[in-house]
Amino acid sequence: MSLSLNRRAGEILDRIAEQSAALGISVSTLTNGARLVDFGVKVPGGLLAGKGLSEICLGGLGEVAFLPLSYGDFSLLGVSVAIDGPVLPCLGSQYAGWKIQRGKFFAMGSGPARAMARTEKLFETIRIQDEADSAVLVLESGRLPTEEVADYVAEKCGIKPDRVSLAVASTRSMAGAVQIAARSVETAMHKLLELGFDVTKVLSGFGVCPIATAAADDLTAIGRTNDCVLYGSEVFLTVSATDGEIEALIDKIPSSSSRDYGQLFGELFKRYDGDFYKIDPFLFSPAKTSITNAASGRTYRAGRFNAELLRASLLG
Amino acid sequence: MSLSLNRRAGEILDRIAEQSAALGISVSTLTNGARLVDFGVKVPGGLLAGKGLSEICLGGLGEVAFLPLSYGDFSLLGVSVAIDGPVLPCLGSQYAGWKIQRGKFFAMGSGPARAMARTEKLFETIRIQDEADSAVLVLESGRLPTEEVADYVAEKCGIKPDRVSLAVASTRSMAGAVQIAARSVETAMHKLLELGFDVTKVLSGFGVCPIATAAADDLTAIGRTNDCVLYGSEVFLTVSATDGEIEALIDKIPSSSSRDYGQLFGELFKRYDGDFYKIDPFLFSPAKTSITNAASGRTYRAGRFNAELLRASLLG
Amino acid sequence: MSLSLNRRAGEILDRIAEQSAALGISVSTLTNGARLVDFGVKVPGGLLAGKGLSEICLGGLGEVAFLPLSYGDFSLLGVSVAIDGPVLPCLGSQYAGWKIQRGKFFAMGSGPARAMARTEKLFETIRIQDEADSAVLVLESGRLPTEEVADYVAEKCGIKPDRVSLAVASTRSMAGAVQIAARSVETAMHKLLELGFDVTKVLSGFGVCPIATAAADDLTAIGRTNDCVLYGSEVFLTVSATDGEIEALIDKIPSSSSRDYGQLFGELFKRYDGDFYKIDPFLFSPAKTSITNAASGRTYRAGRFNAELLRASLLG
Repeated sequence: MSLSLNRRAGEILDRIAEQSAALGISVSTLTNGARLVDFGVKVPGGLLAGKGLSEICLGGLGEVAFLPLSYGDFSLLGVSVAIDGPVLPCLGSQYAGWKIQRGKFFAMGSGPARAMARTEKLFETIRIQDEADSAVLVLESGRLPTEEVADYVAEKCGIKPDRVSLAVASTRSMAGAVQIAARSVETAMHKLLELGFDVTKVLSGFGVCPIATAAADDLTAIGRTNDCVLYGSEVFLTVSATDGEIEALIDKIPSSSSRDYGQLFGELFKRYDGDFYKIDPFLFSPAKTSITNAASGRTYRAGRFNAELLRASLLG
Repeated sequence: MSLSLNRRAGEILDRIAEQSAALGISVSTLTNGARLVDFGVKVPGGLLAGKGLSEICLGGLGEVAFLPLSYGDFSLLGVSVAIDGPVLPCLGSQYAGWKIQRGKFFAMGSGPARAMARTEKLFETIRIQDEADSAVLVLESGRLPTEEVADYVAEKCGIKPDRVSLAVASTRSMAGAVQIAARSVETAMHKLLELGFDVTKVLSGFGVCPIATAAADDLTAIGRTNDCVLYGSEVFLTVSATDGEIEALIDKIPSSSSRDYGQLFGELFKRYDGDFYKIDPFLFSPAKTSITNAASGRTYRAGRFNAELLRASLLG
Repeated sequence: MSLSLNRRAGEILDRIAEQSAALGISVSTLTNGARLVDFGVKVPGGLLAGKGLSEICLGGLGEVAFLPLSYGDFSLLGVSVAIDGPVLPCLGSQYAGWKIQRGKFFAMGSGPARAMARTEKLFETIRIQDEADSAVLVLESGRLPTEEVADYVAEKCGIKPDRVSLAVASTRSMAGAVQIAARSVETAMHKLLELGFDVTKVLSGFGVCPIATAAADDLTAIGRTNDCVLYGSEVFLTVSATDGEIEALIDKIPSSSSRDYGQLFGELFKRYDGDFYKIDPFLFSPAKTSITNAASGRTYRAGRFNAELLRASLLG
């Protein structure tokens, strides 16, 4: 199997599509020939669909598993991820950094098509370019994307629309919640990028994160999925750097270092009048992070779980 | 792959049969052409055989994994299951509801053949009918099933005996203990059915359960495998219902709500003179259950582990 | 798939080699035609490469997974293994018992080639002989093995050098640390062998062990990987024996029963002037072991974690 993230994701999507009935997803073809796979908009989707969607987000470069996570006197269903060389799969693919706005459709795009289109500023910093003759984009949305969306993605990727696959799940769907919980390592990687760390120095990552309990509306779902990461996730990274580079930022990594830490994400969102971009960007980080420097053998740790907020958010 | 539970289970069994030496199982053909796979009667079987048997019980619709489970000051080896749309795999297939009695052979049958034969009352409530040209039945028994058993299963499934596969493991075998520990979600589903809940409203389930330590006799094994579920298992369900429907029964779900809760299953069994049907049917339930209502976003929890009884049962 | 450990390991290595770019490993051919796969000497390797290497060490007879392990107030990334009939995969293959010394190259060899070459005393006790037309040897070394090594292995296995595959990873590489953490059950098996127990009576094993945090030098890596097993691993075995056989040795199994227990392995190594063979051989054992006797149904437990030493070793 080639290292092309899009080719790998495409093969996983092919396998998943064959199991659509078992996975509670639906596969269709748009009029422009693009493949649309609904993981959780008009279909139930589910845990295993979410696992597959998570692997697609990672361009096939990562292992995803379910596990129970204990927070003192209560447990939650969670997801673990194991990822080597996380720059490519996490920042080049999984990070939801591509704003897709066509007509009435708006969503943040993740998945390997990002590394073909390279429309984001982030690709000026991380020199990744994926080559393939087909592209897979993952959309977190409560609406199904249209032909217009597929045309736009195709154009930006330099391929024909019938070579584009769009995978979509709403934030509040089960598959949506799973694929977000599979972002623990990605969130740490993005925080490191924001803090100016040379992310190519990260050798591997492992992380766990609870899966948000199903919410009745998208706003609550956005709150819960974020609370899972901010208050319940833990990430273990191995890097090769100088100790100084890590010491300079380890205390800034966990979500608890943010000025906006300490309340339910949903309330924070309201406080900022629903303007995502007013929230401290440094808030978006795992609750706990552990960084081992392979060059020195030293391990740095920061952060803590917040069981009280997790319970208030997820088990209300 | 088709959604037919029997076809999926048959494909898993084919793969397992090719690995019979590695898995410690044995494959043979009865005189009527039926395939007999011994997972733990005259063979050692093992953990991985048990995992395969668990997947067969679920008709291939579920993920099974090993993990350590902690109960305060001791740990046990356990099994997790992740299952979407659990009515079909859990109640249509995994539930051991088909009494098979032919000559001297008696066992409760589970697995996808149940959904073809549809001899049980349960199939009047859950409208499931599996279609395939071959059938797989799983038998929990210390004896190997005979031609007579295969003939009977074939007849009830409306196929020829040489299209029947019988997988068998004793309660006290390792594979037997694993496949029972993989029933955490199924046990919750069956309890919900007994309580009159519309089980088609359950969207997904995840559960963990310790694997019974090997017992020297079947009676002790029956006690331990039940104690594992009653006192050591935890299940997370997502449903789409009204809050009222869940509130009406959440407190009745855990085993602790039963009048027969609180002693080792083996002692209970003796107290009722070994008559299974005298035991409170509401006892059979996971120790802890958590239900999230996707329609309202609310989560309901009930039950608790009983580490003292688990230790007394498994670590004696 | 045949039960030949070498054939199974070879198939896994073939699959892994196709994914070399994704796994951060490199595949090359020595001048004598032997295949050399570098999992962590001149390449980064990684977690998933280490998982594959662990499966190769076990001759394909075992399941390996990542999981977080909690030790009170801190967690570590760990590895679980599930293995049936562990004599063959653990002692016949995974145990690093073959001293390979050719020219300047020295390493302990593990993996299925051992069961073809059968140069070790251990093979007088455990009657295992693997037959295949190709062999796979795993080397824990900071140097790449030479043609001379491959020639020697080929000769001892009775095959041509171009039928030999050498997989190599240094102790301090990530893949090296993972494959050592995957030795929890093997370590228990070897301790049982040393204690004179008839290891063919072990039916199955499951174990967990933390993965050593990356060290800056081989000596520290040797210390950490050993500390992980001695102070942080737990193993669950099922055997079929007399209770007397187990009672006679259960207290001698855990590392804490050794006269050399209780200090960091690195310090111990120094105290004995770096002479591995002066260390109490009975020290090499999991921190905690639980043995269930299927013949009697009794479970015996011994040992404890040592979180303080784990923290001092891994999180310094």
